[in-house]
Amino acid sequence: MTHPIRVLGIDPGLRRTGWGMIEVIGNRLIFIASGTVTSDNKLGLAERLVQLHDGLSEIVRKQEPMEAAVEHTFVNKDAGATLKLGQARGIALLVPALAGLSVAEYAPNLVKKTVVGTGHAEKEQIRAMVKILMPRAVFDTDDAADALAIAICHAHHRGSATGRMAQAGAA
Amino acid sequence: MTHPIRVLGIDPGLRRTGWGMIEVIGNRLIFIASGTVTSDNKLGLAERLVQLHDGLSEIVRKQEPMEAAVEHTFVNKDAGATLKLGQARGIALLVPALAGLSVAEYAPNLVKKTVVGTGHAEKEQIRAMVKILMPRAVFDTDDAADALAIAICHAHHRGSATGRMAQAGAA
Repeated sequence: MTHPIRVLGIDPGLRRTGWGMIEVIGNRLIFIASGTVTSDNKLGLAERLVQLHDGLSEIVRKQEPMEAAVEHTFVNKDAGATLKLGQARGIALLVPALAGLSVAEYAPNLVKKTVVGTGHAEKEQIRAMVKILMPRAVFDTDDAADALAIAICHAHHRGSATGRMAQAGAA
Repeated sequence: MTHPIRVLGIDPGLRRTGWGMIEVIGNRLIFIASGTVTSDNKLGLAERLVQLHDGLSEIVRKQEPMEAAVEHTFVNKDAGATLKLGQARGIALLVPALAGLSVAEYAPNLVKKTVVGTGHAEKEQIRAMVKILMPRAVFDTDDAADALAIAICHAHHRGSATGRMAQAGAA
């Protein structure tokens, strides 16, 4: 019997960070839980990062993932938006690593290609494929659906060279 | 007698994060300590962020600051560099906030203008002025000197509207 692996996918954002927990048993994918951690945009930046930290820490504690995967995004709009995303992403990488988990990173194109079959999929296609791959999956936001897609991507690549490269931060 | 305020300044960076502790007693500035937290660029990103987190957490525990100030930088070179800086900056904001400190943010131009008198000062001018304002100050890197300059900037603006705006994350 293959040992089940619990994978936490995270789609980071300062306002909304999506998360999705799945269990991988050989080729089978089982939906466990998903959700969205939000920060209050009336608060200062440092306090908002504490909200993301506390929310993600609770999820790691409760869901007990064995591996984590975080989307590796660039925002090309403007430097301010990229800096904001980077700050949220720092927390998304830190929290599972503080819990001793390995944290893989995957580019959005690889996530889409793995889940939908093409690197240029729309949000609806991702949501639909997550439901096809895991019919019991529920998600409250697009960010939670994206987080489940990231976890699925990790399930496919975790044993491969791509996955190992991603885990070393080279992807 | 005015109560002394212990201020921690932080100049965030993924490879090197500078820090500087000062004590403010009315108009007097007293150098306490400074240093540089580094991360190992052979490790994955998440592990490097853990190194910054652990290093800064130890400084907050040992130095017992009452307030913190972090440089608010944009990197305009490219999105990749800005994302990297954002991730390190997220940790620099998180660690003092987790310890319950208020965390102010100051733009580099305001730091230079406050410490040197002009918004376009060179690194050597910042180092020289930090030594003039606090003759006992020692720093191992430019990042540590910058962190002391950020702490000095906060000492000047913490009571003012600029300081309050900065603390609300609006600067």
